[in-house]
Amino acid sequence: MEIEQLSRGLDTVWVVLTAAMILLMEGGFALLEAGFVRQKNAVSIIMKVFVDIAFGALVFFAIGFAFMYGKDAGGWIGLSGFFMEGDLTHLVLNISNDTYWLFQCAFVIAVISIVSGAVAERIHFRAYIIYTIFMTGLIYPISGHWIWSSNGWLAKLGMIDFAGSAAIHALGGFAALAAAIFLGPRIGRFGSDGKINIVPPSNLPLASVGAFILWFGWFGFNSGSTLSATNESIGHIAVTTMLASAAGCAACILFTMLRYRKADPPMVINGALAGLVGITAGCAFVSNAAAILIGAVSGIVMVLASEWLEKRKVDDPVGAFAVHGISGSIGTLAVGLFAMPGTAAHTGLFYGGGWYLLGVQALGLLVVAVWGFALTWLVLKLISLFKPVRVSRDEELIGLDIGIHGVPAYSQDHDFLDIDQLRRNPTE
Amino acid sequence: MEIEQLSRGLDTVWVVLTAAMILLMEGGFALLEAGFVRQKNAVSIIMKVFVDIAFGALVFFAIGFAFMYGKDAGGWIGLSGFFMEGDLTHLVLNISNDTYWLFQCAFVIAVISIVSGAVAERIHFRAYIIYTIFMTGLIYPISGHWIWSSNGWLAKLGMIDFAGSAAIHALGGFAALAAAIFLGPRIGRFGSDGKINIVPPSNLPLASVGAFILWFGWFGFNSGSTLSATNESIGHIAVTTMLASAAGCAACILFTMLRYRKADPPMVINGALAGLVGITAGCAFVSNAAAILIGAVSGIVMVLASEWLEKRKVDDPVGAFAVHGISGSIGTLAVGLFAMPGTAAHTGLFYGGGWYLLGVQALGLLVVAVWGFALTWLVLKLISLFKPVRVSRDEELIGLDIGIHGVPAYSQDHDFLDIDQLRRNPTE
Amino acid sequence: MEIEQLSRGLDTVWVVLTAAMILLMEGGFALLEAGFVRQKNAVSIIMKVFVDIAFGALVFFAIGFAFMYGKDAGGWIGLSGFFMEGDLTHLVLNISNDTYWLFQCAFVIAVISIVSGAVAERIHFRAYIIYTIFMTGLIYPISGHWIWSSNGWLAKLGMIDFAGSAAIHALGGFAALAAAIFLGPRIGRFGSDGKINIVPPSNLPLASVGAFILWFGWFGFNSGSTLSATNESIGHIAVTTMLASAAGCAACILFTMLRYRKADPPMVINGALAGLVGITAGCAFVSNAAAILIGAVSGIVMVLASEWLEKRKVDDPVGAFAVHGISGSIGTLAVGLFAMPGTAAHTGLFYGGGWYLLGVQALGLLVVAVWGFALTWLVLKLISLFKPVRVSRDEELIGLDIGIHGVPAYSQDHDFLDIDQLRRNPTE
Repeated sequence: MEIEQLSRGLDTVWVVLTAAMILLMEGGFALLEAGFVRQKNAVSIIMKVFVDIAFGALVFFAIGFAFMYGKDAGGWIGLSGFFMEGDLTHLVLNISNDTYWLFQCAFVIAVISIVSGAVAERIHFRAYIIYTIFMTGLIYPISGHWIWSSNGWLAKLGMIDFAGSAAIHALGGFAALAAAIFLGPRIGRFGSDGKINIVPPSNLPLASVGAFILWFGWFGFNSGSTLSATNESIGHIAVTTMLASAAGCAACILFTMLRYRKADPPMVINGALAGLVGITAGCAFVSNAAAILIGAVSGIVMVLASEWLEKRKVDDPVGAFAVHGISGSIGTLAVGLFAMPGTAAHTGLFYGGGWYLLGVQALGLLVVAVWGFALTWLVLKLISLFKPVRVSRDEELIGLDIGIHGVPAYSQDHDFLDIDQLRRNPTE
Repeated sequence: MEIEQLSRGLDTVWVVLTAAMILLMEGGFALLEAGFVRQKNAVSIIMKVFVDIAFGALVFFAIGFAFMYGKDAGGWIGLSGFFMEGDLTHLVLNISNDTYWLFQCAFVIAVISIVSGAVAERIHFRAYIIYTIFMTGLIYPISGHWIWSSNGWLAKLGMIDFAGSAAIHALGGFAALAAAIFLGPRIGRFGSDGKINIVPPSNLPLASVGAFILWFGWFGFNSGSTLSATNESIGHIAVTTMLASAAGCAACILFTMLRYRKADPPMVINGALAGLVGITAGCAFVSNAAAILIGAVSGIVMVLASEWLEKRKVDDPVGAFAVHGISGSIGTLAVGLFAMPGTAAHTGLFYGGGWYLLGVQALGLLVVAVWGFALTWLVLKLISLFKPVRVSRDEELIGLDIGIHGVPAYSQDHDFLDIDQLRRNPTE
Repeated sequence: MEIEQLSRGLDTVWVVLTAAMILLMEGGFALLEAGFVRQKNAVSIIMKVFVDIAFGALVFFAIGFAFMYGKDAGGWIGLSGFFMEGDLTHLVLNISNDTYWLFQCAFVIAVISIVSGAVAERIHFRAYIIYTIFMTGLIYPISGHWIWSSNGWLAKLGMIDFAGSAAIHALGGFAALAAAIFLGPRIGRFGSDGKINIVPPSNLPLASVGAFILWFGWFGFNSGSTLSATNESIGHIAVTTMLASAAGCAACILFTMLRYRKADPPMVINGALAGLVGITAGCAFVSNAAAILIGAVSGIVMVLASEWLEKRKVDDPVGAFAVHGISGSIGTLAVGLFAMPGTAAHTGLFYGGGWYLLGVQALGLLVVAVWGFALTWLVLKLISLFKPVRVSRDEELIGLDIGIHGVPAYSQDHDFLDIDQLRRNPTE
């Protein structure tokens, strides 16, 4: 047994286990979203999570990974490694390319899952599959290349995004915003008299447990992004991740107790997630105190952003933009303020590093946000030329579970169903 | 610190963590099954999962492990290591025997959990406990010895079954088939006019999350079966596992969209699992492309097998045979076709290895299927001589939760129950 | 790559991953408790779990860790390391202090979560937050210092508590008992005619899955407490943990079949947990046979303790005292009987070590039980001087979800809610 072999084995174990933790987050997304939407759409939202994993993994295997981590062309795109074949010698890792792919695959599935929440209760299933193919094969891999490939143009400018406040969450969040606006609000969400109507979550215990599973997976997400078990930052990353999420959650509890005179459960759930999103970019580079601040600010601003979005009549059923888009932006910019000396190539403003890093972070964030928003709009527009992107009024009213998938989420005991009836599309 | 000590520690950590992941799959089985059955039987199916773990672990500790991995007698059975004591020096591992036992214990619990789904909603609890003792103490350990003990007669022929498409899933699947036939269909499942009635799943979101948890655990199942963190195949195993499950799930989505004109949620859930079962035998030995093919075929054939079983009036409430029996068979045979040169002792047909390996795989599969089916039938027959194997008509109609366990799965707020009434057996 | 660096990396990975497993147990607590209480309080109990994590982590970071593991003052308390700064050089670990903190933080969150179950359905949210701050900042850290700091006075006497049957579970369990008595029973729980009324669990499938998640996390809890991947006991710890929980669960199944003529689901769920609690102190020191005995006894005594508590008119909605207090006591004392020679400083009574260890264990248990009970009573009394500790009768009857948090756990599809109404405190 050589020490190099052992070191490689240790890193492999670390990356495979943390990748599996990230994949379990899909169970978290499914519970969170099924709990937040109405019963009549609970199956349909989970079917989207199955699409995220199944189509996401296959498309990322076929083309996405190559565009993201293949041989660089001008800082803009990778162009080798389709189907994990061809020249990938530029990847110098202490783990196999296969292991690296698995970890990156877990990431791309998370990105598309962010969008799935914003389009809940009204997107057409077929359209969602097509959008998933574009997101996991093109949109995310290309902007991901800019930030995370060593030759990406944003990476070369010095942009810092440890585990993806920008590359994952801001991208997914702004894509979610575009999709929510493109689809329009759910029927009845905003009254003709300008009244805002709240859709009460169908199952808050499920949604909460979804958040706990996401919380658990995030330790894989952030700590695992070291890709190396001997990276001295692992402990610090885990601590900042814990503190920021605790601060986001606690801040939401106290803030909603002040603002609404009650600790608001859906906001508290999203507050913990907002703290996690916020610390994702800087977890390895900021101090414990900064982590608490980033988390608390992310949690509170998430509440305000949710309210603002509602007033603008944008209907984002699970708060995907407020949680991922806004907190991802905060987290990306916060690195420009709080990056400690010696932890990364550039130092943050508050540690004497000047405005450079903050400027780069702001530029990168702007680019990713515009890219995610514009490409999503474009793809949905494109799909709409051929097939409807939104379900019919009847399907929406009856719910997508019966309307599109022909089966209710929850059934009582008394009935058997006739097989012939079940296996005919009930919308015809 | 010696390097050997470190290597041993690394492998221990790897095996303990993956074993824990496999144990978490019991939570997945519980959710999947409770979601698929009717509300009135949701507790009773979960109580069976508790039996799987509790009795399974104790029996496997007392006798199962010895029969499976004890000192070999003629290639047929192991005969040392009862209660983990006695001579186990023939086990040459880089982990302690205790650690090895834990991993194997997680496997045996998975086997019996496969059967629990097929007998749902009608088996008597007492009979299930007795069957569990036979399955985890005798049936699985003995056939497992043939395949996985280094001196097992199928192992010596060269049978390849990396993480158990045959030893776990085909065995469990054919045992499930025998039990489903032995018990007969649930009341009303098949109309007297030959009509097939569908029991709508009581809680599809729970069932889906069960599938996500199983999916997560499978990375422990397959990758952990290396038993060594420095095994160079870990990354490849994780990738083929991911690709096959994604292919199984995506194939089911597209196939049911074509066949039923809707993406059928219960089939999609089982499609992902079918892909996972299919790749379990060959995950370390087949190419990425073969993994995708195996997964897709497993997913589609699972749908057809479910339909075929229904037409034959066999009632398998959660699709245990279609998912585990059929996909396990496909996976076992696929190794005979796709095993790449240099990965195992024999090479598959498509890589110039000739028919030998395929023949051995087919023989091994046949043996395991017959063994699982016949022994299960025999044990249930034996039990039925003394005690009823199936609940009474009244208990089945009222549901096993109230009928056998005296408590409903879901209760409303308004009632308190009288303790004296609750603690009397409601069937008397 | 130096071997020391690799060793440190391996231990870091081990501790971070097991800490994450322990944190996932919060999802388990949430499901278990939400499933055991009534629907109208399912959100409120989960909000308490969010408080456990959010406030628990922040308070333990600020002061709790320092009091527990800071520089010792007379064996009674630690006094350095507030906000993880200052002198912690006395901690000689193969992992970073950050990594160590994360693991300990997961523990403190578990302690407070034990109490959350006992106060379900009637404690005021504000009062619970304040109590959480005291528990995670003072009560647990101080008694934890006595047992687990190398200079703690109980540690110096030779008290053995590997992963916390006393320090975690007995403390939490007796605190839960004090809180349950202080608050008094839920309205209607005990009839004026002396009749005991049972509150049927609102969702037993959720509660069961909570138990499976806790079960999974326990392997992190016990095995991870080695803090070292090369500790030769890891395998043995995992096996005793598995055997004790299986024995606790199986014993409960058989015992309730005899006693109530049915396998009682809530008791079976708690029986598995009782086995886990019971083995937590001795998992590294007792034999496999002793582990089975400890688990089985814990499971059966838990049933009897639940009945006894009911007869005494103490209302502990999820059985926190019976599971954690009683089984934790059994586990702590069992070490005094069964500790094998060479595994710890002192040997148990049954292995010729005499009465000394048993006496120390009994003393430590007594101290921790009294401390947990008395301080909890004192803190709740203190809070009650300023703010009500229990919700009003109206809030309790309508349920804490609507009464305190303004939102129901489960909503049907038909209604939208008016935002203005929702964001006003419904109790005014």
